[in-house]
Amino acid sequence: MSMNTFGHLFRVTTWGESHGPALGATVDGCPPGVTVGEAMLQHWLDRRKPGQNKYTTQRREPDSVRILSGVFEGQTTGTPVQLMIENTDQRSKDYGDIIEKFRPGHADITYWQKYGIRDYRGGGRSSARETAARVAAGGLARAALARLAPGINITGYMVQMGPRAIDRTRFDLAAVGQNPFWSPDPVTAEHWATDLDALRKSGDSIGAVIEISASGVPVGLGAPVYRKLDTDLASAMMSINAVKAVEIGDGMAAALLRGSDNADEIAMGPDGPVYSSNHAGGILGGISTGQDVVVRFAVKPTSSILTSRKTITKAGEETEIVTKGRHDPCVGIRAVPVGEAMMACVLLDHFLLHRGQVGENRGQIGGSR
Amino acid sequence: MSMNTFGHLFRVTTWGESHGPALGATVDGCPPGVTVGEAMLQHWLDRRKPGQNKYTTQRREPDSVRILSGVFEGQTTGTPVQLMIENTDQRSKDYGDIIEKFRPGHADITYWQKYGIRDYRGGGRSSARETAARVAAGGLARAALARLAPGINITGYMVQMGPRAIDRTRFDLAAVGQNPFWSPDPVTAEHWATDLDALRKSGDSIGAVIEISASGVPVGLGAPVYRKLDTDLASAMMSINAVKAVEIGDGMAAALLRGSDNADEIAMGPDGPVYSSNHAGGILGGISTGQDVVVRFAVKPTSSILTSRKTITKAGEETEIVTKGRHDPCVGIRAVPVGEAMMACVLLDHFLLHRGQVGENRGQIGGSR
Amino acid sequence: MSMNTFGHLFRVTTWGESHGPALGATVDGCPPGVTVGEAMLQHWLDRRKPGQNKYTTQRREPDSVRILSGVFEGQTTGTPVQLMIENTDQRSKDYGDIIEKFRPGHADITYWQKYGIRDYRGGGRSSARETAARVAAGGLARAALARLAPGINITGYMVQMGPRAIDRTRFDLAAVGQNPFWSPDPVTAEHWATDLDALRKSGDSIGAVIEISASGVPVGLGAPVYRKLDTDLASAMMSINAVKAVEIGDGMAAALLRGSDNADEIAMGPDGPVYSSNHAGGILGGISTGQDVVVRFAVKPTSSILTSRKTITKAGEETEIVTKGRHDPCVGIRAVPVGEAMMACVLLDHFLLHRGQVGENRGQIGGSR
Amino acid sequence: MSMNTFGHLFRVTTWGESHGPALGATVDGCPPGVTVGEAMLQHWLDRRKPGQNKYTTQRREPDSVRILSGVFEGQTTGTPVQLMIENTDQRSKDYGDIIEKFRPGHADITYWQKYGIRDYRGGGRSSARETAARVAAGGLARAALARLAPGINITGYMVQMGPRAIDRTRFDLAAVGQNPFWSPDPVTAEHWATDLDALRKSGDSIGAVIEISASGVPVGLGAPVYRKLDTDLASAMMSINAVKAVEIGDGMAAALLRGSDNADEIAMGPDGPVYSSNHAGGILGGISTGQDVVVRFAVKPTSSILTSRKTITKAGEETEIVTKGRHDPCVGIRAVPVGEAMMACVLLDHFLLHRGQVGENRGQIGGSR
Repeated sequence: MSMNTFGHLFRVTTWGESHGPALGATVDGCPPGVTVGEAMLQHWLDRRKPGQNKYTTQRREPDSVRILSGVFEGQTTGTPVQLMIENTDQRSKDYGDIIEKFRPGHADITYWQKYGIRDYRGGGRSSARETAARVAAGGLARAALARLAPGINITGYMVQMGPRAIDRTRFDLAAVGQNPFWSPDPVTAEHWATDLDALRKSGDSIGAVIEISASGVPVGLGAPVYRKLDTDLASAMMSINAVKAVEIGDGMAAALLRGSDNADEIAMGPDGPVYSSNHAGGILGGISTGQDVVVRFAVKPTSSILTSRKTITKAGEETEIVTKGRHDPCVGIRAVPVGEAMMACVLLDHFLLHRGQVGENRGQIGGSR
Repeated sequence: MSMNTFGHLFRVTTWGESHGPALGATVDGCPPGVTVGEAMLQHWLDRRKPGQNKYTTQRREPDSVRILSGVFEGQTTGTPVQLMIENTDQRSKDYGDIIEKFRPGHADITYWQKYGIRDYRGGGRSSARETAARVAAGGLARAALARLAPGINITGYMVQMGPRAIDRTRFDLAAVGQNPFWSPDPVTAEHWATDLDALRKSGDSIGAVIEISASGVPVGLGAPVYRKLDTDLASAMMSINAVKAVEIGDGMAAALLRGSDNADEIAMGPDGPVYSSNHAGGILGGISTGQDVVVRFAVKPTSSILTSRKTITKAGEETEIVTKGRHDPCVGIRAVPVGEAMMACVLLDHFLLHRGQVGENRGQIGGSR
Repeated sequence: MSMNTFGHLFRVTTWGESHGPALGATVDGCPPGVTVGEAMLQHWLDRRKPGQNKYTTQRREPDSVRILSGVFEGQTTGTPVQLMIENTDQRSKDYGDIIEKFRPGHADITYWQKYGIRDYRGGGRSSARETAARVAAGGLARAALARLAPGINITGYMVQMGPRAIDRTRFDLAAVGQNPFWSPDPVTAEHWATDLDALRKSGDSIGAVIEISASGVPVGLGAPVYRKLDTDLASAMMSINAVKAVEIGDGMAAALLRGSDNADEIAMGPDGPVYSSNHAGGILGGISTGQDVVVRFAVKPTSSILTSRKTITKAGEETEIVTKGRHDPCVGIRAVPVGEAMMACVLLDHFLLHRGQVGENRGQIGGSR
Repeated sequence: MSMNTFGHLFRVTTWGESHGPALGATVDGCPPGVTVGEAMLQHWLDRRKPGQNKYTTQRREPDSVRILSGVFEGQTTGTPVQLMIENTDQRSKDYGDIIEKFRPGHADITYWQKYGIRDYRGGGRSSARETAARVAAGGLARAALARLAPGINITGYMVQMGPRAIDRTRFDLAAVGQNPFWSPDPVTAEHWATDLDALRKSGDSIGAVIEISASGVPVGLGAPVYRKLDTDLASAMMSINAVKAVEIGDGMAAALLRGSDNADEIAMGPDGPVYSSNHAGGILGGISTGQDVVVRFAVKPTSSILTSRKTITKAGEETEIVTKGRHDPCVGIRAVPVGEAMMACVLLDHFLLHRGQVGENRGQIGGSR
């Protein structure tokens, strides 16, 4: 019943509308003693920030995050952390068209039908601006993980844009930060640049697939049967604007496989079990195996396009709409830091849950416990 | 926190292990005045029951559900409904191999590492037998929906088995109950029969894709930003054993599309908005549009196969394992009624949430409100 | 929105009606590796069992608890523990009067008005029989505490019956089990016996005050600002049938005090802080101090009495009612083991929450950390 | 889980420290279409504001509330409402003593022991300043109730200060706003003024009892067995700083009564059941009866007093402390608006829960349903 909250012990409630005075995240349950400051959070927000390059929206929002509570002398105190981002680029522009017309593919119509009122300015609550608050909270989660589970490394990247996917033989995590698409394959990144230039000229948009991978995840996070790690990851990623599908490990492709192909065989390494493959995406029975946790999600193309689309007005009249304004032709690009933030929050939450419920892993393999 | 619970106002907690005395579902929050009896629930359980035909496991479990509380004189009273299924087919068989060895692709190893103890008999808590409890709870949810939102119709069916998908041009909901695969395409069902015969002979297994479609869903179910209808559907489906991916509407294919293709255009019909297509799967901004709500999920191939796989023992020694026993070559088949049950639970839960939070839809289109 | 659930990480959902087939508790979140068996739980149930002596109801219910899940080879596995008590004393008696008439002081009228249906047999869901399920769950909580926080000792006792209170100068915990009233003051126990004999003869009933004290509670349980230890204790005790007030430490008497009297001064002992008094009841700012946690609650007199009372029927006609049957003249007596069970559940829950959120206490006094 | 949240469908998370940049309440689940503005909330905050008269702390904090989200064109939109109060009176004063010494009766020592860090400035998170956020949220709850359940009227007042209680024969709700103590008995108010003058001179403080009464509460709010209306009221009131006891209806005095005295007899009035008395405080079986809902709570004397008390330092050394500063000699006075706010939040929450779970009351008395 927390409409706008996710997490169980590390609970994030985001609030705020695109063109209201501010938006932010109320984070309850952050462990005490975590070193964090505004600059650390700003680092992650800057990765998501619009106006970074010509492939994302040209709005210029400083997106400066302020910590209003829960941090004292540079450390979390165990009390709620309020992260606020003021909206500075609220141009008093003419919202004329979208006040009366519903944009196809947007939440305009369902918000209106359900609530009978909506802040239409820039999409209001349904704007992707909400994800800035998630990225701030994710920064805090990363800081907590750095103290509690220091081996975890979370990286997001784009693996497909429209019909063009990366070539996994060229996969290089080091390349991710070197191109505007967070692509681990530099060659594909160049093709995407060409594709997107053409798209933008035509006023159209395109979908994408993002992959988030976490290495160094301890064994034992997650719990049967509904608070599985994969359940919460699915929920977290699906809650991001424009996401239409979530995959764990092989995902949809698992349907194509035979059992003899799909099994990740187990051997014994010096530090414990070693798996021959990772079809499972690092999760068995809802619990992390210690392998990389791998999640992918599909982002639909931006619904705000320059092509005229048929729609209706609040009065029920049929009409057409063209969504002008500064929009990302591929919102998938900016979804990468958001997916990373959600992964950080889910892993921290399950780390705390596991510590609370079980204390520490109890079954040893090949040891004496 | 609720490790084994799903739902917010209609809350289902399943309990029980595959070979313990019983398993069941504790359902809290069912509205009062719902007409329900054991026979009504049994109807749905019988659809899921093993041993129905040669394509599912040959265990014969009557799976008889008993209502222990919350129903008085044929109606729910608003108090918790306890649904219990006793385990009758607990043969005191030799579990030898799986006591010490971890089956690849199973929860054996992670349960052991996390908890240091596991009921290994038949998979214990991680057995797909747990889904019988969900189906019973889903039956109760259907009964409640029949009273509260009588237009809703939920149907699940298999759309792909291994590499072979149905042909949508032959799609016929009436065919679903006429073949052992819940296939809406009778021709493909025959091919699947041939495929599965061959698979079973080879002792192998295969993955599948299930689609659950709900028509007649009222506008307005779901809520921004984390309690979206799609978020909860993703969570519900991903929590089913062996599921590796969840799609809403176009799902992963949305990544391939351009914005101009993806938009579901809106016209005005006699009873309200009419959409030109349903790429969105009946959900915009997390809220139902009134179109069919369409969810798909991929089920990995059964990990219990007759092919020998490499693994390790609790003592850390490398070895091999062959999983004998009576297993489904395609667990996807029996996942169909489970997916339907989860859909029923999620829709009822969101119906109650919407009624609590909003009362009734507040925005009229083309009307006078 | 768990109507019938309490706890956060150790979650207890009770289910069942007084005269249905069974009742019980679904316990989710019990840590793994806790040694427990039916006999251990039965021990606590037997303390609460009716028919123990002439001062409690003469119904004879064996109240045998069965563990249906979550325990394997004598240990909890971390999966849900289902505790079931079958109702054996369901005499097919004539419920005539209470079917149509509402008993004053009972839930009859509000259940009817809210739900439009109620299982009137023996009070149905609102019967104090529901507390048997709590006592079973409390037994499990005690077993878990014995492993995780072995120093904790929980004792409940009656400190007042009607206008007659115990004399604290005669307070002796050893006396508690030696009289039918759980009185720590044997002299008062004898007076209560006389009082109750007279009351029973007159067909009347009487209220009582119960105190539950827990020693050995670790410092640090509880959390600001709403998940305070005292908040959850208040909630837990107030949820017991017939309870009308809850006090922590000095309770209502704190209103009478001056700040200079109320302060528990602090000195330094060999093992940490030592307090000069315990006005606070072992809790400061919602967090346990390490002193005894002391809670009291007032139980109203049984509403089922032989004196005729005015009431109305479902049809709205004015009438009178006499509640015959086998009722406790002082339900407070049987509330003692229930209060203990709630204390055990709350302490375990907060132990797990603290371990999850904080790990271990982080601030040392007089040490080097 | 939600350490700093209360409520189920109307969820309030407060955040902020006494001397941080700001504090506030994140309110999730407020129904849409509620007319509200900053001035409406300010009205309630001004009632609680310090510096109102010589009997409350002389700090002058404007406590101006800002609405940062969830309200559009004067109405709630159904999205989270962020209420922020900036801290303006953060004098950079010398906190010397309380940095190293623990104040007896305060949360200083337990926060330190649990978290190893605390914002000691003005009590940080444990300061009663946190209740300003509750009052703001309560103002929003009142606005929502005004639309959804317009007959509800909530009034709080002080019924006892130290050993001096009001005389109920002089009870007059109209008097409540006419004296600085929210006393419904003007004569007692004058005695309290004299008492408090003497106390303040001596640097001491005193406890109090507050009663909150709500008339016009619809029948049917609350639910068995743990989400009882009284359970949530107990939890809400106990969570207020310095509260040590909560009573419903007769409260502790119920222990003194016989069943024949305690029963609230029922007659039939023109609009439904009429009760001869209200020992139950308007709640039977956890569900509202339609009578006044009556709650009382005891507030301990302010622990910050001028009398020197024994304590220890973080280093474990024994010492003494005098708490200077601007403190209320009777914090109970300012707890009155806080208790009202909690009542408003609980009633709204249960109104929404009831509407979600049941829809509307289903059992008619004397009617045809």
